Amino acid sequence: MLVAGATGFAGALAAHLLWRHPRFELAAITGRAEVGRRLEELYPRYRVPLALEQLDLDALEQLDAAVVAYPHAAAAPTVAALRERGVRVVDLSADFRLTSLATYEQWYGRHPRAELLGEAVYGLTELHREQIAGAGLVANPGCYPTASLLGLAPLARAGLIADLVIDAKQGISGAGRAFDESTHLSMAGENILPYKVAEHRHTPEIEEQLTALLGAAGVAEAPKVLFQAHLVPLDQGELADCYVTTTRAVGDAELGELFAAAYEQEPFVEVVGTPPGTRDVQETNFCRIFAKADSHSGKVIVLSALDNLWKGTSSQAVQNLNVMFGFPETWGLT
Amino acid sequence: MLVAGATGFAGALAAHLLWRHPRFELAAITGRAEVGRRLEELYPRYRVPLALEQLDLDALEQLDAAVVAYPHAAAAPTVAALRERGVRVVDLSADFRLTSLATYEQWYGRHPRAELLGEAVYGLTELHREQIAGAGLVANPGCYPTASLLGLAPLARAGLIADLVIDAKQGISGAGRAFDESTHLSMAGENILPYKVAEHRHTPEIEEQLTALLGAAGVAEAPKVLFQAHLVPLDQGELADCYVTTTRAVGDAELGELFAAAYEQEPFVEVVGTPPGTRDVQETNFCRIFAKADSHSGKVIVLSALDNLWKGTSSQAVQNLNVMFGFPETWGLT
Amino acid sequence: MLVAGATGFAGALAAHLLWRHPRFELAAITGRAEVGRRLEELYPRYRVPLALEQLDLDALEQLDAAVVAYPHAAAAPTVAALRERGVRVVDLSADFRLTSLATYEQWYGRHPRAELLGEAVYGLTELHREQIAGAGLVANPGCYPTASLLGLAPLARAGLIADLVIDAKQGISGAGRAFDESTHLSMAGENILPYKVAEHRHTPEIEEQLTALLGAAGVAEAPKVLFQAHLVPLDQGELADCYVTTTRAVGDAELGELFAAAYEQEPFVEVVGTPPGTRDVQETNFCRIFAKADSHSGKVIVLSALDNLWKGTSSQAVQNLNVMFGFPETWGLT
Amino acid sequence: MLVAGATGFAGALAAHLLWRHPRFELAAITGRAEVGRRLEELYPRYRVPLALEQLDLDALEQLDAAVVAYPHAAAAPTVAALRERGVRVVDLSADFRLTSLATYEQWYGRHPRAELLGEAVYGLTELHREQIAGAGLVANPGCYPTASLLGLAPLARAGLIADLVIDAKQGISGAGRAFDESTHLSMAGENILPYKVAEHRHTPEIEEQLTALLGAAGVAEAPKVLFQAHLVPLDQGELADCYVTTTRAVGDAELGELFAAAYEQEPFVEVVGTPPGTRDVQETNFCRIFAKADSHSGKVIVLSALDNLWKGTSSQAVQNLNVMFGFPETWGLT
Repeated sequence: MLVAGATGFAGALAAHLLWRHPRFELAAITGRAEVGRRLEELYPRYRVPLALEQLDLDALEQLDAAVVAYPHAAAAPTVAALRERGVRVVDLSADFRLTSLATYEQWYGRHPRAELLGEAVYGLTELHREQIAGAGLVANPGCYPTASLLGLAPLARAGLIADLVIDAKQGISGAGRAFDESTHLSMAGENILPYKVAEHRHTPEIEEQLTALLGAAGVAEAPKVLFQAHLVPLDQGELADCYVTTTRAVGDAELGELFAAAYEQEPFVEVVGTPPGTRDVQETNFCRIFAKADSHSGKVIVLSALDNLWKGTSSQAVQNLNVMFGFPETWGLT
Repeated sequence: MLVAGATGFAGALAAHLLWRHPRFELAAITGRAEVGRRLEELYPRYRVPLALEQLDLDALEQLDAAVVAYPHAAAAPTVAALRERGVRVVDLSADFRLTSLATYEQWYGRHPRAELLGEAVYGLTELHREQIAGAGLVANPGCYPTASLLGLAPLARAGLIADLVIDAKQGISGAGRAFDESTHLSMAGENILPYKVAEHRHTPEIEEQLTALLGAAGVAEAPKVLFQAHLVPLDQGELADCYVTTTRAVGDAELGELFAAAYEQEPFVEVVGTPPGTRDVQETNFCRIFAKADSHSGKVIVLSALDNLWKGTSSQAVQNLNVMFGFPETWGLT
Repeated sequence: MLVAGATGFAGALAAHLLWRHPRFELAAITGRAEVGRRLEELYPRYRVPLALEQLDLDALEQLDAAVVAYPHAAAAPTVAALRERGVRVVDLSADFRLTSLATYEQWYGRHPRAELLGEAVYGLTELHREQIAGAGLVANPGCYPTASLLGLAPLARAGLIADLVIDAKQGISGAGRAFDESTHLSMAGENILPYKVAEHRHTPEIEEQLTALLGAAGVAEAPKVLFQAHLVPLDQGELADCYVTTTRAVGDAELGELFAAAYEQEPFVEVVGTPPGTRDVQETNFCRIFAKADSHSGKVIVLSALDNLWKGTSSQAVQNLNVMFGFPETWGLT
Repeated sequence: MLVAGATGFAGALAAHLLWRHPRFELAAITGRAEVGRRLEELYPRYRVPLALEQLDLDALEQLDAAVVAYPHAAAAPTVAALRERGVRVVDLSADFRLTSLATYEQWYGRHPRAELLGEAVYGLTELHREQIAGAGLVANPGCYPTASLLGLAPLARAGLIADLVIDAKQGISGAGRAFDESTHLSMAGENILPYKVAEHRHTPEIEEQLTALLGAAGVAEAPKVLFQAHLVPLDQGELADCYVTTTRAVGDAELGELFAAAYEQEPFVEVVGTPPGTRDVQETNFCRIFAKADSHSGKVIVLSALDNLWKGTSSQAVQNLNVMFGFPETWGLT
């Protein structure tokens, strides 16, 4: 097992989880910076004694899997090189999350390795478990799409979503290891900061998945999603509030049945009876969901809480690797 | 000038602002607890050397105005007693915010002094300045309605709101001086906590005002508002994200004109070109508003940021008192 | 295994650690409040599905061990009752930490069960491992003494401490589940708060242990300790800065040898080469220590970092239980 | 009035305070970066509408005073150029804080403008008010020395300090606008971080001032100070704990008299009867001091709290400017 790009928050956590995993053997971690330093020096809490290396694919023999934790566009060439060597990849970037090349290019520009789009499986484990099991390339979802789609899938499968607003909030780790105004404690502390108004790139990712689910339920035209993101002053935690205008009246009893049916077998999705705080799931692979019909407005509210770095990113990557290699899904995650 | 209920966050800040006000003379501050202690002992930052007293209206001679900072339902009897003595009152509770007794009773139960409802003026300064000037009883708005209505008024006056979702977030001071799970740093820290799902009492307050504005614009039926609140781990700050389905297509140019026209003369409302962080207005009476048309979803997004204890509560009370007594609105607030 | 007093922070964490322990079986958790509620409702992160019970010792059969997490003075009677039934106890309170009854009474008042003082073993694992192994009653140390004594023991054993100032800081969880000014985020946030100046009860606990270590090294008179505590705005974490006037000149080389010799075999004490941040050991049983000779002042500085709820309290209790029952010390703790 | 270096925290706050000052006229603010942007864009809370300029001394006519907020060593040449033009300067850097060139060079290396050392007055207002009044160059103290020296001066003047340990803590703003591991909320949050162990450059600054005070009291040899600094997760606030071994026994009564005599006429130093939290003085020019004799250890504890950016830096600069220009010391600061 390789983690490429282990200096960032996502890669470092993936390395930590794989290092303590009962079966995977973490052979190497790479980074462009900090080469030669042990990961536990950069991230003392993670206690991974491996040293960071320059990525040299030729030197990596008998590698069967890799997590690629590079920025968008930078990931695709490395993913392609790994795939050429037969390595199964979970890619944490956005490069292979969208099925449609046209949609990708509309939001991100030219795709560096469009030929791999067809091969990639969208790695929201609970939605695509079977395809993930046999996949060579899994595109790990964004953290916001993970929270949002887990909250919305039961409604989408039932064809119930007519219109949709998602207001999402996350901790500062969501901005990554970037050192700037958005992460400086004297600026990010005591602040609630909306960002990327009407232009967040997680929008098409959510829409594409919802469109597929709604389409399967016979809804020809999925709604255009309004997605708005915010940074709030904590480290790890994310809440997506989904405000759904339904295609017909839906009450709490029906909601209860829909969500129970969807998730009662899931090891990492918890449907709860009170509004979930993100602290409840911090540093876990759990997603907690609360759904309620608002009789006043007629809309349905779904609140979905997770840890943006765990289920939102790196622990979901491990969950996907467990599925890909036939291990119990909870290994290394509880 | 009297502040009744000065031990809580709102009353203490009102006392602080009135103590340093160039014209008002703060004659007494009262509280049920902490009687005899100087306010600056409880709130060192506010530096008000007055001691807390038991409220004794008969002992207060020549009182011309009072701020009442009691909890809901507890405020009304004191407000009534002050009004009987001819004292002009700004009431920080919800007791007199709603015009309709039926709506009040639906959300709060029996009204303790319903006979005063007709006399009360809703104290959102920017919307009701003229009535406030002559009012004997001003019902200071809730913090969420202040942020939301300032953000929505330009659209409502133009008759543009067909449907509406408001997702609001505020710091822990919004929970008041309550000592419980919602305010303990080891529970409220590192948390994003939604609360009062589909049942927040600020909903009818927002609706009643919007209905009036829309009605004046010829819109007979105002939308039922979905309002959702959250606590995030900071002290003071509040952001209301308003997601508006408009009655017709609205672009950024029109939004710019509407908001400029509404607020260019206002000393405390700032229409800005980038998404406002709440830190930008912390400890000020300013409300910062950013409006944007989302061409993707067709909706309009309005972000409205203020300090929940200042413009959301106590500094707006002072702003109202300035209006009531004919002083420049900015006195004591800049 | 029983945890008595599982509603507080310390008891709840002990229950969490014992619930996931590979060998101990957590049979019951008790509390005076919240009876009937599952612990995972109060502390969602801990995921202990047991319900809180009223403590009824007669109903507990075949109990071999218990953690008592009661406040000081309240713990002793329950500890005594458990000991009468032959149950081995780790007591988290201060009731049995001091050997000297006179010292106890000077700082705490009358002792509720002084007859048990002689039986108790001071549960700083690294210092008293052998006695703990055979003990019936282990008095788990305070969090500040744990950090301080681990930092000072190598110097004390070498007879090097002539005078001593300890300046310690911890997160708000150190104030426990108390709901008051010291824990409210709007008061504890953005604050550095010194407390119990010249009167902290951890002082005699540190002194008694140091006196024993120094005495064994031939130092007849141990110094009177100046210990000062502070609350800073984070959840879990504690740093003790120990400023030591030494009995003779000590350089970095000698310090390095002393600390390496003391701890190189210890699984949970890490002697490090750079100043430790408390975040490095958050939610672990590790204590990180950095020692440096200050050639300018001639003093020795020892910085000792741990998590006040983990190694400072509950995970050290589990470490002690491992020792008492002959399990590897790291079981359930890594 | 000019503020050179207004993009950093200290310079920006100085500009804010001078902008709202009743008498000083802020003519220009300069910065190497961000030229052309208004300061209120970088720091919305400060609401200074001036745009940042390149520093061009020739273009500045009739300038009578300047605050220089450059890093150490970078400040001296600009200070010298300003002095040549007859401009009175308050320099926020360390370049002119030390009287002794030898001491400067030992801690900082070669001095860029040593010839100005003799002219500079150390700008701890309460200690050197008379010299400041006539000074052309005032070296504004470091924040730690300000807190420490205000806490220690009454003891030093009485010749009572035999030995001394200072343990100081401050918020993240103390690290300045630096974007790195020490300021990123996901690293600095939930952390207590000691830094510069046995090597902090504020040590000689404190020592030089103490030596002068002790010398005046007839104590020939001042102690070598052990000074240790920490970052804790808040924005603005600083506490210096001074642990003093006295030259003779000192009790609380004598302490009370010493501190009252020293500060009862001071507008910005408050001697208090309970341990001060830094929040009590946040965003003020006040320093709060609490002194207590520890009968147990025989030492004296002095706790000194201030806002590191205000009294610790920029508001003290304004206090000094008030003194230099003969204005009441509190102007623009309350």
